[in-house]
Amino acid sequence: MVQTNEFAHRMASKTIKLVDKEGYPVAGKEVTLNLTNHKFLFGCGIFDAIEVANKIVPADRLAFQENKLEKFLDVFNSATLPFYWGTFEPEKGKPRTNELKAAAQWLKERNVTVKGHPLCWHTVTAPWLLDMSNEEILKSQFDRIERDVTDFKGLIDTWDVINEVVIMPIFDKYDNGITRISKDLGRVGIIKEMFAKTREFNPGATLLLNDFNTSINYEILIDGCLQAGISIDAIGIQSHQHQGYWGREKLEEVLDRFSHFGLPLHFTENTLTSGHVMPSEIEDLNDYQIPEWPSTPEFEERQAKEVEEMYSILFKHPQVEAITTWSFSDDGAWLGAPAGFVRKDNSPKPAYEVLKKLIKGDWSTNVKCKTDDNGMVSFEGFLGDYDLVCGDKKRSFKLDKVAETVQITI
Amino acid sequence: MVQTNEFAHRMASKTIKLVDKEGYPVAGKEVTLNLTNHKFLFGCGIFDAIEVANKIVPADRLAFQENKLEKFLDVFNSATLPFYWGTFEPEKGKPRTNELKAAAQWLKERNVTVKGHPLCWHTVTAPWLLDMSNEEILKSQFDRIERDVTDFKGLIDTWDVINEVVIMPIFDKYDNGITRISKDLGRVGIIKEMFAKTREFNPGATLLLNDFNTSINYEILIDGCLQAGISIDAIGIQSHQHQGYWGREKLEEVLDRFSHFGLPLHFTENTLTSGHVMPSEIEDLNDYQIPEWPSTPEFEERQAKEVEEMYSILFKHPQVEAITTWSFSDDGAWLGAPAGFVRKDNSPKPAYEVLKKLIKGDWSTNVKCKTDDNGMVSFEGFLGDYDLVCGDKKRSFKLDKVAETVQITI
Repeated sequence: MVQTNEFAHRMASKTIKLVDKEGYPVAGKEVTLNLTNHKFLFGCGIFDAIEVANKIVPADRLAFQENKLEKFLDVFNSATLPFYWGTFEPEKGKPRTNELKAAAQWLKERNVTVKGHPLCWHTVTAPWLLDMSNEEILKSQFDRIERDVTDFKGLIDTWDVINEVVIMPIFDKYDNGITRISKDLGRVGIIKEMFAKTREFNPGATLLLNDFNTSINYEILIDGCLQAGISIDAIGIQSHQHQGYWGREKLEEVLDRFSHFGLPLHFTENTLTSGHVMPSEIEDLNDYQIPEWPSTPEFEERQAKEVEEMYSILFKHPQVEAITTWSFSDDGAWLGAPAGFVRKDNSPKPAYEVLKKLIKGDWSTNVKCKTDDNGMVSFEGFLGDYDLVCGDKKRSFKLDKVAETVQITI
Repeated sequence: MVQTNEFAHRMASKTIKLVDKEGYPVAGKEVTLNLTNHKFLFGCGIFDAIEVANKIVPADRLAFQENKLEKFLDVFNSATLPFYWGTFEPEKGKPRTNELKAAAQWLKERNVTVKGHPLCWHTVTAPWLLDMSNEEILKSQFDRIERDVTDFKGLIDTWDVINEVVIMPIFDKYDNGITRISKDLGRVGIIKEMFAKTREFNPGATLLLNDFNTSINYEILIDGCLQAGISIDAIGIQSHQHQGYWGREKLEEVLDRFSHFGLPLHFTENTLTSGHVMPSEIEDLNDYQIPEWPSTPEFEERQAKEVEEMYSILFKHPQVEAITTWSFSDDGAWLGAPAGFVRKDNSPKPAYEVLKKLIKGDWSTNVKCKTDDNGMVSFEGFLGDYDLVCGDKKRSFKLDKVAETVQITI
């Protein structure tokens, strides 16, 4: 049963008045109310949707990928698609817009909310920026935002506008166009420009600042942005835990520090592996290159426990509105880590089953009840989209915190 | 001789036309041009001025203190006076305004520019704030700024407005009123409020943000402040080096990172000791409590070398406009460290002599020249106040970067 107190912020009560086409109450009828889509965003990075939507891989690979996406769709309602400038537009003027549009469309048709990641980042950025002056780089970055945000409006209305700004101007692994302009503009300056440009071309979109840095650096940066009048819709927090689960204490401490701004929090890039833990002395996760990083039964059990605890803590926190696990599958996972909910052969790990039970079971709403003499039925459930089934008829409605009574005609 | 290239930013050329009372050129006369006061601020924390100006100590102590201040005045032209709320106004409504005014006046009469330190800080703040609501604390802090900035206007026109904001809201050594309100306002928010209030009551003052944190935390904080429209006149950088001299590399790295904002830099609290180095494992310098921290001949030589190198690097940097050594004397020095230019008995250490030679010798201007047939004489010198001596006559003028020719009547 639902523990009402813990999840009060995720729920609402609603009274439905069921009427027939003539407007008469449908009294004494049994109805079923099923949550079909959570308001909360349970997501994954699911770049595989590009291959499936565009059918650009051989038949056996396509079948494998379709099977993967089926398992994804069974549990999740949110997806991140890649807009890394360097891979999205490797050659200037030839963006992969059509392929990405097909993927976003494919997901949208399946009730999945899509986020684009990212519009501005110093890593995997367009290599051809290096031939430009800083003024030209900035103009190209603006043009890129204008083009892509406009092209995807309606399909993608959530953007990681700018990624990893804490390190951006001091990133020194290699020269790149974005680090160059971030030095000119300053951290808050570049955020301000990128948010303004994105907002200009999709005023209603949900715009995120995203970082892996969860120290007070990021807190001060957010503070500065808000005081500078930048309207950030959600704070994006990366949590790649290849070096071991943060644990409840650190997680709650991070939540405490970042909830302080009163903004929604999105856990944008979560990783909990089902393999051995990356040594703690590795500073940049990208430096850990090993030939094989196996998923083992023992560590799959650990991953399942960690996923259960972490998702539960986040789902209970009133300001968290989204959790994205970065790799749905071990197949193609970042750093070759066994970071997925499914193994390389698409077989679900315990973490998949545990999370499915939470999202589709414990945190879902499926109730049967009978309308009273006035055709009324009241219930409490998790926020989101619902189907009302009465006999052979089915109607959809939304459970939100707004109106308490809604009339449905069947 | 002056190395013109290195110090070009500290110098100017000027042509003086010397005329007599009737306006006729004073031709073929020998004149001496002496720098009497640097534009650059060479300062110390010199809280001892309170005892001397107010004569509130026994005669022998007073004589000792007067001797100390004489040595200070021989070299320095800038002083920091203490405005710690907890000691300035230990009992609400009874501030030590008169004592501090006397000290500021005493220093001003001796051509010393005085800075007040600080208007807002979580350490040594008024203990009676703890009995107030956060709203009342904020109001008291505003009132304090209004009162003190107004009372000292003309005597003190440079303020460390707010101190150590990076740590302020997470300072957890003990409860205090300022940490409380900084949590409410946020870091940039409290800086904004304090700067606005200080500016309101002394619009022409030089207002500093000051911190010991020289990490990117402080960079991001400054970035946020500037983007939020806070007009900071100078960035204050503390450099208490009880744990060893930073060295050229770190110093230049700090200069590089903080000069990036294009603002003047003030080294507000410098310490280089003539004793053993505090162990590096001490995180909060205040935790290092030892019965005796001797100044030794060996370490005095080291201190002199470090002072020479550090002051030279800073004086060469075009954005540095002030260096304050925190303890002029070992007598009463913070943490009991041998941090002064003079020992506990007022005898000058080698560092004193080295710095005196730089400030009053290498970096000073004292030239003799002869006026031409038109009464003209041209020279290049360090910026600041000058005396022109011609025979038994003496006139003062200012050497600045503004006008190239000035007429002086003798």
